[in-house]
Formats: sequence, C-alpha cells, structure tokens
Amino acid sequence: MSLVVVGSVAYDAVETPHGKVDRMLGGAATYIALAAGYFTKVSIVAIVGEDFAQEDIDLLSSRNIGLEGLERVPGKTFFWSGVYSNDMNDRATLVTDLNVFADFDPKLPAAYRNEPYLVLGNIQPALQRSVRDQMDGVRLIGGDTMNYWIKDYRDELLATIRQWDFLLINDSEARMLSGENNLRRAASAILDMGPNTLVIKRGEYGAVLFRRDSHFMVPGYLLEEVFDPTGAGDCFAGGFIGHLAERGVDLKSGKVDKRDLGRAVIYGSVMGSFCCEKFGVDRFRTLTRDDIDARFREFRDCTEF
Amino acid sequence: MSLVVVGSVAYDAVETPHGKVDRMLGGAATYIALAAGYFTKVSIVAIVGEDFAQEDIDLLSSRNIGLEGLERVPGKTFFWSGVYSNDMNDRATLVTDLNVFADFDPKLPAAYRNEPYLVLGNIQPALQRSVRDQMDGVRLIGGDTMNYWIKDYRDELLATIRQWDFLLINDSEARMLSGENNLRRAASAILDMGPNTLVIKRGEYGAVLFRRDSHFMVPGYLLEEVFDPTGAGDCFAGGFIGHLAERGVDLKSGKVDKRDLGRAVIYGSVMGSFCCEKFGVDRFRTLTRDDIDARFREFRDCTEF
Repeated sequence: MSLVVVGSVAYDAVETPHGKVDRMLGGAATYIALAAGYFTKVSIVAIVGEDFAQEDIDLLSSRNIGLEGLERVPGKTFFWSGVYSNDMNDRATLVTDLNVFADFDPKLPAAYRNEPYLVLGNIQPALQRSVRDQMDGVRLIGGDTMNYWIKDYRDELLATIRQWDFLLINDSEARMLSGENNLRRAASAILDMGPNTLVIKRGEYGAVLFRRDSHFMVPGYLLEEVFDPTGAGDCFAGGFIGHLAERGVDLKSGKVDKRDLGRAVIYGSVMGSFCCEKFGVDRFRTLTRDDIDARFREFRDCTEF
Repeated sequence: MSLVVVGSVAYDAVETPHGKVDRMLGGAATYIALAAGYFTKVSIVAIVGEDFAQEDIDLLSSRNIGLEGLERVPGKTFFWSGVYSNDMNDRATLVTDLNVFADFDPKLPAAYRNEPYLVLGNIQPALQRSVRDQMDGVRLIGGDTMNYWIKDYRDELLATIRQWDFLLINDSEARMLSGENNLRRAASAILDMGPNTLVIKRGEYGAVLFRRDSHFMVPGYLLEEVFDPTGAGDCFAGGFIGHLAERGVDLKSGKVDKRDLGRAVIYGSVMGSFCCEKFGVDRFRTLTRDDIDARFREFRDCTEF
C-alpha cells in the first residue's frame, strides 16, 4: 500500500573522520522516501528552491518516489552543515539555513489525500497536524520529532501525536518527552500520550518497539566502518514504515501479527545500517532489494538462539 | 560438568539512587559462583579474613558451591566501596582496601585439578596464569580482566589470555586492549591474541559474542528498576560459563553448536539482569531455576522475528 512522506528535502555539508562533502542531497523526507521506496510506492511532500538540481530530481524519480508534492519556489533549498566527533557519537551543527523551508506549508495534492499510509518527518508539530487534517481516512499515521519541539512546543506536539499510530524517537528524546529515565517506564508514559506503537532508536545499540502488551528489541548492526551516520534514523523510519505498508499492517487493529512488527524494526535497522556505509544518500544509488534481504537474514543469523 | 571459579570474595559498601548498604557480600568470584551454581557444580578458590561471616559461608554452601578452596587467614576481608551516578551508568570508587587479598596466591586443592571448566575473575594476570598452570587437562578456560591490567600489565595479560578459550570484557576494555574503536575490528584483533571466543559486554545495551566465523548479538534486558548494578558483569560470566559447563561445550572444537553459544550469552544476560534487581547478592537468596528459564523465554519472545 502506498505511502506519503512529508518533511525536509535539503542540501547538507558533512564532515566525518572519513572525509568531507560540501554539498550533497539530504533532508529527512529524502532519506525516509529513499529507504521506503524499496518496499512500497512513495509520494513526497516537501519544498525546495530554484537551486535544486535535476540530478537529484532524477535520483528520487528513479526510486519509486512520486514528486507531484515537491513544491519548487524562488529562493534557496534548506541547507544544513555539521561535523561529527571522532567516534561519531556526537555531532555539532555548523550552519542551519532554513531558506525556502522557513515558509513550508505542506499542501497535499488531491491525489495523495486518500493514500493509506502517512509518515511525518521531523518538522514543526502544527505542520505535521495540518497534513494529517488534509488526509481522508488515512489508515496508518506516524512520524518523528526532536528535542526542540519536545522542549519548546510541548502542547502543540502532544496535540499532534495524540492522533498518531506510531512515534519514532531516540532514547534521549523519549526520556525528555516522558520525564522518565528508565526506558520501559518512559515508553509506558509515551504510550499514554496517544500512539499505540513507539519505536525508540538507540543509535549503534539498536532499537526497541513498544506496544501496550509487548515489546521487541533488536541490537544494532555491527558495521566495520561507519562513513557517515547522517540520515540513518530517517532511513530506519523508511524501512520500518515501508515494511508495514508493504504488508498492509494496521497498527490500530488488535490482531497485529507480532512478526510484522518485529520484521519492520529489522528492516528499519537494515536500512539505517546501509545508510551509514557511504556519505549522504550515496549507498542508495547502488543498493538493491536483494542486498536488503540478505542483511535481514544476517540479522536473523546473529540473533537467533 | 563442574567448574572452578577463582577470584575475589569481598565485602562491599554501595550507594545507588535507590539506597545505601554499608556492608554486604560481594567480589567477582562470589557473583560468578552464585550465578553459575544454578547450572552446574561450582568450586571456589579465594581468600577471606577472620571477619568473614558464617551466614555468608552458609549462603554459598547452600548454592551448590564447594568451599574447600576458600582460604581463611588472619586479617580482614577485601573491602570495596562505591557510589553510582543518578543514571547508574557511572560509578566512583570511594575505598579499595585489599586487606588479605593483597597476598592472594591461589592454590588449587588437589581435588580441583582435574575439573574440566575454569573461569578466572578479574585478578592480576600472573595469578590467573598460575592457576591455569596448576590444572591438569582443563577442557575450557577463560575469564575477565580490567582496564588497569590492560594498561599497566599488558605483556603479562597477553601471555595469560593466549592460553584462554574465552575472554569476557566490556566494550571500553575491548577498545583499549585492541587499539581499535570499531567493535568488529576490535574483536578481530583480540581473537588474534589467543581466545577463540570473545564476549563483549555492553552494560544496559546487551552483549556480543565473537568467534572467527560468526558473531551473536543480544540486546540488554529492559528492567523497570535497576537497584544496584554491582556484580552484574560477573553474573553474566557465571550464567555464560555455567550454561557451557551444563552442556559440556568445548569451545576449541570446530563443531561447536552455534545455539549453545547463543544460549550461553542469553543465560549470561538473564543472570546479569536478575543481579540488578536487588542490592548485592540479595536477588540470589530467592531466585529459582524456573525464574531463570522464564526470563530466558522472555528474551526469545521479545527478540524473535
């Protein structure tokens, strides 16, 4: 079943211990859509400036991603620049030029309004809500957020996620949102806020999915070399929702197959791990569904007992 | 098959956000033996002072642990005191009084010399080696070490672990020992140092077992409440080696069943998780093998996909 992805499409400059790239395609919606496109038909809603390159349009188009909702306006595309620490567990933002993204007011093309799956990248909670309100009978909705919205836009964020089926955040965000340090109790508090499914991403340590009656844990894939972790969390989201959409899962149902949930988390981990293997979106230029399924099996081989 | 455990038996004073205990039974050999005792017959080799309490002797005796090798000498038992940070990810040592442990020179009772399994808690590498030299035809040997020996006794440590089948250390120790930041490459370098099996413990994030041709990963058990993490790593070691001894596994064999290895890591994780539920060794006063097997199944339930 097809999926609408809303969020940023950007240019990034990134420096890691392995090198430096001055300008490359980035943005949450880009990574989510590229990852999800291996599993299902994806349509993007985002905004870019006049500087957005044809080769980047071509890459997205070639990957099962509909661009009818990619608005192109005068001005420059969102630009972000960051530098990673030596162990790549920390990063400092050097530049955030919102540019045309500052006035992003997502408008869904009529053809998208009846799509069954919606995933909202990390943008202002009120915008996330406005997208949801433009959709008719969406079957599954969820997304991401970040510390900034949790801290300074808490009420708006709470009103937004109350309507969501799933929330994907990292562990420090989960602790901040819930006020609980213990992950299990943090999860329980967040499930009280609306979502029936919570995925807590733990970076190199993996992820945990929580529902009222169960949880599923996966350790992080052990890469020999992490070139650039930029976008890994969004690729996790893309693999996760992509698999749910591929399987037609309805998280609201009381009869969700636990294996679909676990496998969605594994596909999320698989896509996040591939993302780190090259700079920016480069890994997705050559990655195949066979590669993805091989790594899925590798996860099983090294976690089954 | 029965197991000899060599290491410290101590008294600890511990403060965590949940409370404070001024004096309680502790020490690596204590925790390893208590955990392993649920799986196999255990014999301890350690040293204590005249202050060592009869009730602690009674606890160990009641748990399948042979005490013929527990030397009792004039003076006081090893005493350690520490305080944990609020999130319990760090701890500061307040007091380390080696007392009678300063002259520990482990001597194996004749009856232990033909035991098939030997695990060496974290003590000076030369002492670990002397124990190994006292054993005839030991089938499986391994143990733990720490940053201090890695840094200041490197040659002695390398000569010691060269004879081991398995080494159990945490991730920062693995990085220090190997000089590699990446865990997979760190593991590869350490497997070149002698052990055919390496277990890297990652605290709340779980553990990874590495062998030349494979690895096995387990995420950390999610406790609602961590009362006191003291001894959790040693209990992991006890559950791990305990299961291998129970199954009669020979790690040197080319035909090791991968499931035995994975399950040993799971039993290690199970025992480490129980250890954190109460102060010191208290959880083991009531814990049953049924509790252990129930948590083992819980691990399967929340990791299988």
